[in-house]
Amino acid sequence: MTEDKNQPLRSIEELGEFALIDHLTAHFETRRSETLKSIGDDAALLDMGDKKTVLSTDMLVEGIHFNLSYMPMRHLGYKSVVVNVSDICAMNARPTHITVSISVSNRFSLEALEEFYRGVNDACAHYKVDLVGGDTTASLKGMTISVTAIGSVSEDRVVYRSGAQENDLVVVSGDLGGAYLGFQVLERERQVFEVNPQHEPDLDPYHYIIQRQLKPEARLDMVELLEALEVRPSAMIDISDGLSSEALHLCKQSNLGIALYEEKLPIDPTVISACDEFNLNPTVAVLSGGEDYELLFTIRQDDFLKIKGNPNLTVIGHMTEKTSGAQLVLRSGELAELKAQGWTSF
Amino acid sequence: MTEDKNQPLRSIEELGEFALIDHLTAHFETRRSETLKSIGDDAALLDMGDKKTVLSTDMLVEGIHFNLSYMPMRHLGYKSVVVNVSDICAMNARPTHITVSISVSNRFSLEALEEFYRGVNDACAHYKVDLVGGDTTASLKGMTISVTAIGSVSEDRVVYRSGAQENDLVVVSGDLGGAYLGFQVLERERQVFEVNPQHEPDLDPYHYIIQRQLKPEARLDMVELLEALEVRPSAMIDISDGLSSEALHLCKQSNLGIALYEEKLPIDPTVISACDEFNLNPTVAVLSGGEDYELLFTIRQDDFLKIKGNPNLTVIGHMTEKTSGAQLVLRSGELAELKAQGWTSF
Repeated sequence: MTEDKNQPLRSIEELGEFALIDHLTAHFETRRSETLKSIGDDAALLDMGDKKTVLSTDMLVEGIHFNLSYMPMRHLGYKSVVVNVSDICAMNARPTHITVSISVSNRFSLEALEEFYRGVNDACAHYKVDLVGGDTTASLKGMTISVTAIGSVSEDRVVYRSGAQENDLVVVSGDLGGAYLGFQVLERERQVFEVNPQHEPDLDPYHYIIQRQLKPEARLDMVELLEALEVRPSAMIDISDGLSSEALHLCKQSNLGIALYEEKLPIDPTVISACDEFNLNPTVAVLSGGEDYELLFTIRQDDFLKIKGNPNLTVIGHMTEKTSGAQLVLRSGELAELKAQGWTSF
Repeated sequence: MTEDKNQPLRSIEELGEFALIDHLTAHFETRRSETLKSIGDDAALLDMGDKKTVLSTDMLVEGIHFNLSYMPMRHLGYKSVVVNVSDICAMNARPTHITVSISVSNRFSLEALEEFYRGVNDACAHYKVDLVGGDTTASLKGMTISVTAIGSVSEDRVVYRSGAQENDLVVVSGDLGGAYLGFQVLERERQVFEVNPQHEPDLDPYHYIIQRQLKPEARLDMVELLEALEVRPSAMIDISDGLSSEALHLCKQSNLGIALYEEKLPIDPTVISACDEFNLNPTVAVLSGGEDYELLFTIRQDDFLKIKGNPNLTVIGHMTEKTSGAQLVLRSGELAELKAQGWTSF
């Protein structure tokens, strides 16, 4: 999937380190007027004006965070950017610039790296960010990706994890659990393929959840929507590790408790039918399965009318006093304690 | 060297990902007033005011860029920061903030990672930068480090690689070749140790060059000195890959040629005696051996009197027209063409 077998592959050694980064980023456009100096000097130079600068970084490791047997390189490049852009959005900020560094072993062809950077470029175009730096280097084994994203936000719009107040409504964008179920489907097909390489899977019924896993989007549109609606969330976080883990972060940093309602959780029908197939509880998939990159945020009750009826936003609970703890109200009316079962790489 | 065998080591799994980054960065001070929000939210928030923001990133891979059999973890943490701070200095800017991400396999103890972060903290204190983010994750094998540095500079002080003019003087800070010879000594001792673990090397005579390899410094002091002397270089680059390779970068980006004089190259006596021992030509070590992290820059001839006599700065040549190419004038008077033999990781 990462290599086209029909043409001779160029080796990375042929190009050398300097030529490689030039080659891989030659087609990147500069889209932003703040970019005074981009790739090609010791550092990039950005003119951030009077807005505040937001900075986020993530590292993705082959075999830990991604599996190249079903993750196409172009999607991997795209997703690497999305993961960071999502962190910028979670500050209620707009992404402006990224740097992308990769280390790869000599089993990677130049074509595979080009595909990766094509995905990076797709994401730059989609989110209107400039690639302004990076490093490409050898590794003894596998691929490691490190992305840093910069964004900007005015001081009166920035949102931390710590700003929630008691009785604030808890809102989530989009729907949850899809990326996790997409992973289950891809992993099952990989195992089938290992036993029977002739097997041709019908993945059509799983299109939505596979897309959620392989090509997630950061909810920059929600940042823009909230501004248009004149809603400033009191606290916000992106859902990379599962709803439960993220809700606990909001509680801890806002020094509050939370009550979420099982019946309110937004779950796509494809996720529910895939859960049936894998004998999984959809609520568990939502609470513990990560990588949806939706936004989880809190708003004042006064702001409810502004978001009411928007199909992209669902109120799933409210913030409570700290002593009430973090609770899930089940459909049965019983209470369950939320625990951090989010994906952890150790 | 990376583990203390006298006490039970805590495993990384015990802590989990979130606790690990909290644990490793708990003792980091916030030193800068621009830091509105540091580690602990989705992203950091920096108030860069009306200065321009400079951004640089580097990735360091075990077995490619460093060898833990002689690189103590604390030095590795320090050097990882220095490499990036040096890039910021090469823009004539001052570093302000860094992010540090690492991936490590389970052979690394918590104590080893603490040592690494101690070195990061040492460098933060020395260069007065704030650590404001990062990621810690598992790897299947070895350690990979990715550091991003942010700095600031006013628009009338920034220096690119592309600003040199014909007849500008070429100046270098400090002395060159030491880091490369330090590497030779350490590599020799490692090989001796593998054959005879009882061997106790006397490294005292090599103290300076080993220090240059294991604990290099970025020349922020030179950025400050140049400002105090009211000298704005016309072009600048840091020497990470050897003088030859960096000189060629200045030529290419300024669209000029260069003439360097062998007899002017600043070389420490320790480097010369180590070259004798290893049967190496000191000039070759200076041209091709990297990792000195000195600054190479060009100044107008009018500025010569301002830097004359400063023991930290040596004029080693001048910029020429492009058609003259990149030349080294040997002690014999003969000309040699400069070639990029700088260290490359592929």
